[in-house]
Amino acid sequence: MTARQSGGRLAPGPAPETSLFTPRTPRVVAARRLHRRRDRDTTGRFLAEGPQAVREALVGPAGVVELFGTPAALDRYADLAALAARADVPVSAVTDEALAALTETVAPQGLVAVCHHLDVPLAAALDRAPRLVTVLAGIRDPGNAGTVLRTADAAGAAAVVFAGETVDPYNGKSVRSSAGSLFHVDVVRADDPAGVVAALRTAGLTVLAASGYGETDLDDLADSGGLATPTAWLFGSEAHGLPAELAELADARVRVPLHGRAESLNLAAAAAVCLYASARALRRGL
Amino acid sequence: MTARQSGGRLAPGPAPETSLFTPRTPRVVAARRLHRRRDRDTTGRFLAEGPQAVREALVGPAGVVELFGTPAALDRYADLAALAARADVPVSAVTDEALAALTETVAPQGLVAVCHHLDVPLAAALDRAPRLVTVLAGIRDPGNAGTVLRTADAAGAAAVVFAGETVDPYNGKSVRSSAGSLFHVDVVRADDPAGVVAALRTAGLTVLAASGYGETDLDDLADSGGLATPTAWLFGSEAHGLPAELAELADARVRVPLHGRAESLNLAAAAAVCLYASARALRRGL
Repeated sequence: MTARQSGGRLAPGPAPETSLFTPRTPRVVAARRLHRRRDRDTTGRFLAEGPQAVREALVGPAGVVELFGTPAALDRYADLAALAARADVPVSAVTDEALAALTETVAPQGLVAVCHHLDVPLAAALDRAPRLVTVLAGIRDPGNAGTVLRTADAAGAAAVVFAGETVDPYNGKSVRSSAGSLFHVDVVRADDPAGVVAALRTAGLTVLAASGYGETDLDDLADSGGLATPTAWLFGSEAHGLPAELAELADARVRVPLHGRAESLNLAAAAAVCLYASARALRRGL
Repeated sequence: MTARQSGGRLAPGPAPETSLFTPRTPRVVAARRLHRRRDRDTTGRFLAEGPQAVREALVGPAGVVELFGTPAALDRYADLAALAARADVPVSAVTDEALAALTETVAPQGLVAVCHHLDVPLAAALDRAPRLVTVLAGIRDPGNAGTVLRTADAAGAAAVVFAGETVDPYNGKSVRSSAGSLFHVDVVRADDPAGVVAALRTAGLTVLAASGYGETDLDDLADSGGLATPTAWLFGSEAHGLPAELAELADARVRVPLHGRAESLNLAAAAAVCLYASARALRRGL
């Protein structure tokens, strides 16, 4: 049952309450299971909530399986409902309770989409000759992963690799923290971080490991022109950084200089500084 | 009743269970109230939890009122208990339940200190001729405020001003997110952001407003030498940025360039990029 029948979203006027999907409607029950990683992995689907993410998903590379919204949200974001309908994406009106069951935020603005996984093989991403790549190797916090993905997009990274024990890029909090950037870059999932490093280097990228204990100062590297060529940055876990054996595989281990008395930067801040140092050098060609 | 009597922390051997402070012990009840801003404002005190923050507080500018810890934590961090005792800070052993009542994190590692507020007047901070100052004007999320404070410390900012409607710097989450940096920089609280801007400029600082819509590109500003003199950065709210009338008071409104398709950076990432651009320019003198 699609919106065309269920919620009458393409017909004028509000949907009759009786036709709304509830938390017990089988399609809602099935979509709700995507909060669990196992079900995301099995189905190759995930949830994106809120109008911004839904819009990005609808115009994104992999597209949307179906769209759920409260009647009020489907009225308010009628352009998104129409965009979905033009793409033959079923649009279904749901109760507030069903929407709450499908979303994780307090104010999801009434919309949630079931989306297709959109990751691509590393080789495909490298075929596009990216000048800036970000590799997350062991990042456990989905909010951090999504935030770094967003920053990488802003800094011009064309690909973001979720490697090794890194959190699922389709985790709800990661999707939300990426603020749409999940749909902008080539997302890659790879089990073997060392293999990723080897492939990056084969593709001609300089591989830099961000490390609070790195032997190379970021400013010195920038001054020496070491950031002006295509670069991949490796970022490790919040708590432990990169595994030493992985950092050793990089061309250099780079530290963000600490000028005050802070013992470290948090992951997202360090990544922002490193990625924007590369962005500036790549932009200026020096 | 101090630790010397209550928990016998300065005597060898574990404290007898009967002498531990409980959630109903009046001093624990009083300290617990400091989770509320009103009580922090009234008493001029706040809570710092975990061994890192406790250590910073003990050696910090304003000192500690008293230290609570579970017997296990006071054994494990006996150096901190001794440091407190040498500073005539009462140290009291508490039950796990009392510790849980005093702390907000899942794993507080058994220690929490009642600390004196440590903010200083803006004039006092400016008397020390800081080369880099950070102003938070309207930041509502305590985690963001603490994270930016930490990044500011790392970038060498000597003072961080919590201006206008910005979250309380002594909020528990802000304290935790600062990872000790609350105790490293001159923290200033000021009601009137416009007055802060005027005072900063009078002190000879260039005032820059971080804005996604700024007319000045950060890289261009750095290239022109515009970051090589003492600088104060203004950062606004996560949702709305700086109020236009405040941004207009700055010497320039500066945007972090967006190279990819992200619509914006989050506050903490933007602040990291801006503050480190200044740190690099100030370090290199250009």
